[in-house]
Amino acid sequence: MRPPYKTGSQNQEDTTLNSGQQLTLGVDIGGTKVAAGLVDAAGTILFQTRVPMVARGDASAGFAAIENAINAVFAAKPGARHSLSGIGICSPGPLDPRTGIVLNPPNLPCWRNFPLAAEVQRVFGFPAHVENDANAASLAEAIWGAGVGYDNIFYGTLGTGIGTGITFDRHIYHGRTGSAAEGGHMTIDYRGPLCGCGKRGCIEALCSGPAIAARARDRLAEGGHANSKMIALAGGKIDQVQAEAVGEAFKQGDSLAAEVLRTTADLLTIWLGNVIDLLEPEVIILGGGLAELMSAFFPHIREQLPHWSINQRCVEIPIVRATYGTDAGLAGAAALCQG
Amino acid sequence: MRPPYKTGSQNQEDTTLNSGQQLTLGVDIGGTKVAAGLVDAAGTILFQTRVPMVARGDASAGFAAIENAINAVFAAKPGARHSLSGIGICSPGPLDPRTGIVLNPPNLPCWRNFPLAAEVQRVFGFPAHVENDANAASLAEAIWGAGVGYDNIFYGTLGTGIGTGITFDRHIYHGRTGSAAEGGHMTIDYRGPLCGCGKRGCIEALCSGPAIAARARDRLAEGGHANSKMIALAGGKIDQVQAEAVGEAFKQGDSLAAEVLRTTADLLTIWLGNVIDLLEPEVIILGGGLAELMSAFFPHIREQLPHWSINQRCVEIPIVRATYGTDAGLAGAAALCQG
Repeated sequence: MRPPYKTGSQNQEDTTLNSGQQLTLGVDIGGTKVAAGLVDAAGTILFQTRVPMVARGDASAGFAAIENAINAVFAAKPGARHSLSGIGICSPGPLDPRTGIVLNPPNLPCWRNFPLAAEVQRVFGFPAHVENDANAASLAEAIWGAGVGYDNIFYGTLGTGIGTGITFDRHIYHGRTGSAAEGGHMTIDYRGPLCGCGKRGCIEALCSGPAIAARARDRLAEGGHANSKMIALAGGKIDQVQAEAVGEAFKQGDSLAAEVLRTTADLLTIWLGNVIDLLEPEVIILGGGLAELMSAFFPHIREQLPHWSINQRCVEIPIVRATYGTDAGLAGAAALCQG
Repeated sequence: MRPPYKTGSQNQEDTTLNSGQQLTLGVDIGGTKVAAGLVDAAGTILFQTRVPMVARGDASAGFAAIENAINAVFAAKPGARHSLSGIGICSPGPLDPRTGIVLNPPNLPCWRNFPLAAEVQRVFGFPAHVENDANAASLAEAIWGAGVGYDNIFYGTLGTGIGTGITFDRHIYHGRTGSAAEGGHMTIDYRGPLCGCGKRGCIEALCSGPAIAARARDRLAEGGHANSKMIALAGGKIDQVQAEAVGEAFKQGDSLAAEVLRTTADLLTIWLGNVIDLLEPEVIILGGGLAELMSAFFPHIREQLPHWSINQRCVEIPIVRATYGTDAGLAGAAALCQG
């Protein structure tokens, strides 16, 4: 189920780059750091490095951080220039993947309508592509990861937020302007909790890391759970319980943590039922920081799905963990240069 | 916005069929009747007829009704055989559009895994295609109707149920097994009213004709609305209020009926916000028996959409009425033979 994906050591000899193989350079931009690395045609990350992001300066300071990251790759692996087919970039959105313009990301105040792809292409002389992170990660899974062999993939990343990507036939589905596949903001409970996006009852507001933590704190605050390992793991303070403590307590057998995660899985089931009823993908791939933890509940989700999908064959759709973990953005960025 | 679509008279001279034009024969199967007709390459319905459906007999009795409908067309328009490129059939689902097998429709107990397309092809000697009605109707809109000029279409039919269809580049989106685009059963309120499908808070359970009627009856039962025109239109009996009475009262200026429909529009907005966030279609086309009534609220939906979609350009997406009205199934069936 999980194709092997290898990560090269950062101290790897540069000789790995001298075999005539085609490489792509992936850049993963976050609010505080930029990761950049080299990926081969099989999706193996051969080398990567990180530099700080300057998200709150002017546009040129933000771009200088990207330049630094790319130059750091070339400095460490000078041979890469000769094998490089392009530079792929994941950026927080909204952005327009067709023009490579970053529009107005809340997490990157440095850029407003910034022509990121064009600037990278101008400075480095390689074709450049820009995409949002979940879309790109879904493509990496489609061509190198858990989606290999499937033509119709729904990808979700579970973490501080919930992002999604859709790929058909190894191409990212973009919709009208490139803003499709924001599945984390589909509401399943319009009278539910307010999401950061302004809607109520989005799956992100119900099943993200902060939502899981809030659910745990609410249950603990009801009383009667003084022995829950979650409290000890949070230094004895209920209001300090975060998703990590819920996950750790669950692994240690804490029954309330298990209940909190099962409720989360029930809500993910409702969401995935909607996705299946509308899209009927061939596979559902879940990545992000919470995917490992929630994977303990994938069998539960599969079991509950028939209650929340009218698709008579919904249980046949595999629900699997993503192949790429913390490198999903980097691999996704590199994947943009494939095909 | 609304391309002209012409419907030929049932008494039309057969000379209309003698111009060398390519025709398709559409068959629209319902639980109680079968409509069949001839459609030209521009989507004009040249002729149509109806025969009773035999849904509760054995498979051959059910199929005999289809044969009767098709034979009735050939009897009335004998010249049609020479211009016919194929026979398209809309049937209640579930069915497999790729094999043309009707699986196990609740409304057609006569058929269980019935090879409808193959049988029609065997008996009549023309290529035959089978599709569910909302998918087919979306294709008719895409190639002949309100979707002309758009590559990415979300179609919804509002009536006793809510069906949906998705077309990309003038092709129906099918998903893994042909069961995609069941958007009427996306839940926006998982703690909400039970839907006939078994899920809770599906948009069908909230905004179909029966749901609108139930909403009106609930409001009337609260009291204080003895003067509502809905009551008079239902013969003075609140428990007899149906969607038709709500619509008629609204047209007569009844404020409670308007409130009921506005609430319905608010719920449709939440649903369409989810659709836009996931699919970002180029156009949303709404048909079915309630589309005319609800079209009075399309401006309201557009106005509310930014509260229920994170798409910064959601208001640019046109929300329009379908071109085909009660002939949507027939036109959709015929459309299956195009391209």
